[in-house]
Amino acid sequence: MYNPKVGDRLESLDTPSMVVDLDIMEENIRKLMGLLKPLGVNIRPHLKTTKSPILAKKLIAAGAEGGCVAKLSEAEVIAAEGVDDLLITCEIVGPAKVARLVQLFRKYPKIRTVVDSEEGATAINEAWAASSIDEPLQTLIDLDVGLERTGIAPESALALAQHISTLKHLNLIGVQGYEGHLQHVHGREAREKECRASMAILTSTANMLREKGFNIQVVTTGGTGTAEFCATTPGITEVQPGSFIFMDSDYRNAVGTFFSHSLTILSTAISKSGSQRRVTIDAGLKSLTTDSGFAEPLAMPGVTYTPMGDEHGWLSWEEGGTDLLIGARVHMVPSHIDPTVNLHDFYYAYRKGVIEEIWPVATRGKVQ
Amino acid sequence: MYNPKVGDRLESLDTPSMVVDLDIMEENIRKLMGLLKPLGVNIRPHLKTTKSPILAKKLIAAGAEGGCVAKLSEAEVIAAEGVDDLLITCEIVGPAKVARLVQLFRKYPKIRTVVDSEEGATAINEAWAASSIDEPLQTLIDLDVGLERTGIAPESALALAQHISTLKHLNLIGVQGYEGHLQHVHGREAREKECRASMAILTSTANMLREKGFNIQVVTTGGTGTAEFCATTPGITEVQPGSFIFMDSDYRNAVGTFFSHSLTILSTAISKSGSQRRVTIDAGLKSLTTDSGFAEPLAMPGVTYTPMGDEHGWLSWEEGGTDLLIGARVHMVPSHIDPTVNLHDFYYAYRKGVIEEIWPVATRGKVQ
Repeated sequence: MYNPKVGDRLESLDTPSMVVDLDIMEENIRKLMGLLKPLGVNIRPHLKTTKSPILAKKLIAAGAEGGCVAKLSEAEVIAAEGVDDLLITCEIVGPAKVARLVQLFRKYPKIRTVVDSEEGATAINEAWAASSIDEPLQTLIDLDVGLERTGIAPESALALAQHISTLKHLNLIGVQGYEGHLQHVHGREAREKECRASMAILTSTANMLREKGFNIQVVTTGGTGTAEFCATTPGITEVQPGSFIFMDSDYRNAVGTFFSHSLTILSTAISKSGSQRRVTIDAGLKSLTTDSGFAEPLAMPGVTYTPMGDEHGWLSWEEGGTDLLIGARVHMVPSHIDPTVNLHDFYYAYRKGVIEEIWPVATRGKVQ
Repeated sequence: MYNPKVGDRLESLDTPSMVVDLDIMEENIRKLMGLLKPLGVNIRPHLKTTKSPILAKKLIAAGAEGGCVAKLSEAEVIAAEGVDDLLITCEIVGPAKVARLVQLFRKYPKIRTVVDSEEGATAINEAWAASSIDEPLQTLIDLDVGLERTGIAPESALALAQHISTLKHLNLIGVQGYEGHLQHVHGREAREKECRASMAILTSTANMLREKGFNIQVVTTGGTGTAEFCATTPGITEVQPGSFIFMDSDYRNAVGTFFSHSLTILSTAISKSGSQRRVTIDAGLKSLTTDSGFAEPLAMPGVTYTPMGDEHGWLSWEEGGTDLLIGARVHMVPSHIDPTVNLHDFYYAYRKGVIEEIWPVATRGKVQ
């Protein structure tokens, strides 16, 4: 039985393996907290990145308050591991999922959710009414601040708030607006400018609702690319960054190197075929995602990676040949961290070459 | 606890869920066997598609002999479930992996593997020598027939065969050459022509080795796009198709509709934002891969899918508005079946709307 253990050296790991440099990861956490805590916002990290209750607890120990999850099935796993102050950032739609929400809430009444339609709000209210739950669900209106993915249009937010106020079992506590389309805008100035415009939609809608008498306590938003701008926008109470803890090449290309690559996919050169300028490694589409471009080898300038099917990839040398031997190890930097983590079952976290902790990717595959 | 059961109706499933229409899947299996069995080749389906020992057994019951897996860690799982006549089609490289191969072989001596380098062959032989295993490892030379991913060049095959013949613990039984670059060549005629050229490399190398006195019993190759051409090439003894059982849009665009889409990702419309021509569904990058283009909604002509992050996607109507309601269900056809299956934990297999079987994706995430 293959069974890597704490105390093993990194070199003993079979590949591909997902590995985390603890010194770098801890520095990323310190940097985020140092940047945002003095600004007075609540930091509710998005746990869709790490998919790990253990890492959620490390973030809370460092100053975060609660966490976000994208899906209900993630909340089920993370709450059961003791982190139950969770905001589910996607709409809960359909009888099967609403039934799961009722069950989850019975055990973890701190769970809060978003709605962006009257139908959605009504369906949850009816499920509460049919159950014996007394406590209302803390609810946020999900507002479209330009991403056009989910979220109600600002001009319809008042009508939705008024509808929610007629529902006994939903307690409107705030507004969410995620500017996902701005996270990877290249250049700090351009990103800040566009983010301020999105935040204006969010905060003006929150203020409008307050003027109409709604008790809007939470205004939540932001990712790794924008959290700093969100946190310095008056009226924003909470930010949801996730990727900063590990980073990826797509974020680095957009926002720079304030946060560093702490997570890599350790792989092995397994074949030399065809060209002297090329080596085939054992990491392909099942180890590294391609939705945001291709991964890249860590600290190997002039060498590019091309996926060659589910289990293989090419490393190609721009000029000259390669002297990489069969059996050599290469650290690959993911292009998009969240779905890459989702491909793996464990993190092997190391310090100075020795495995110090092994964390399951507890919410891997939790798409429901 | 969310716990879907056999006998439940498809409508009761939460989404996203991976679902299989059994009538269509069984017809795909019948068609493949009907096409290839009369040609007299061994059918060793590549189990990297289904990742399921249960489906491996269904294929064997239908006429397959054994199976292929890409990685050693897949073989560990599938052999333990009773399907141990397995060819591992990727090179086994590195001390950790060779050690696992030794352990696997002790229990399942029918396991066969490929090598494409003298170093690789020597390392395995040394591990056998250091263990107390008497029986040699059935070994195939992996030959590059044009994919340039793994495989030794044809002109170097004899030297590698001679090297293997000096190794006590490796028994050379055949040659593998996978023409992965030809699986998706559009048009039957073009695909056949290129495949015949690749097969000529493979069979001529096999014949050359036989002339030099090597006992080449197995000549194995082929995928869903080429298996028919491989099987009608004199000298090919075995084919390795995988995707035919479920199909995907990329294969359909290349090879046509002889096999039909039996697997879809069931999803739900969760939001209408921005445009009357668009609905947001709950399936994104974590449910449907994008390496071979975007997925498409089943039987909805004029409607396209765009992923919008890990957990969302747009369905967009080319013209007119959409009358799809929030809560409506949509079957999504994957663009690339193998890595899409790898995202999910279970298959829900149904017939006429009722769940008949639930299969774990047993080798999901087995990249080592």
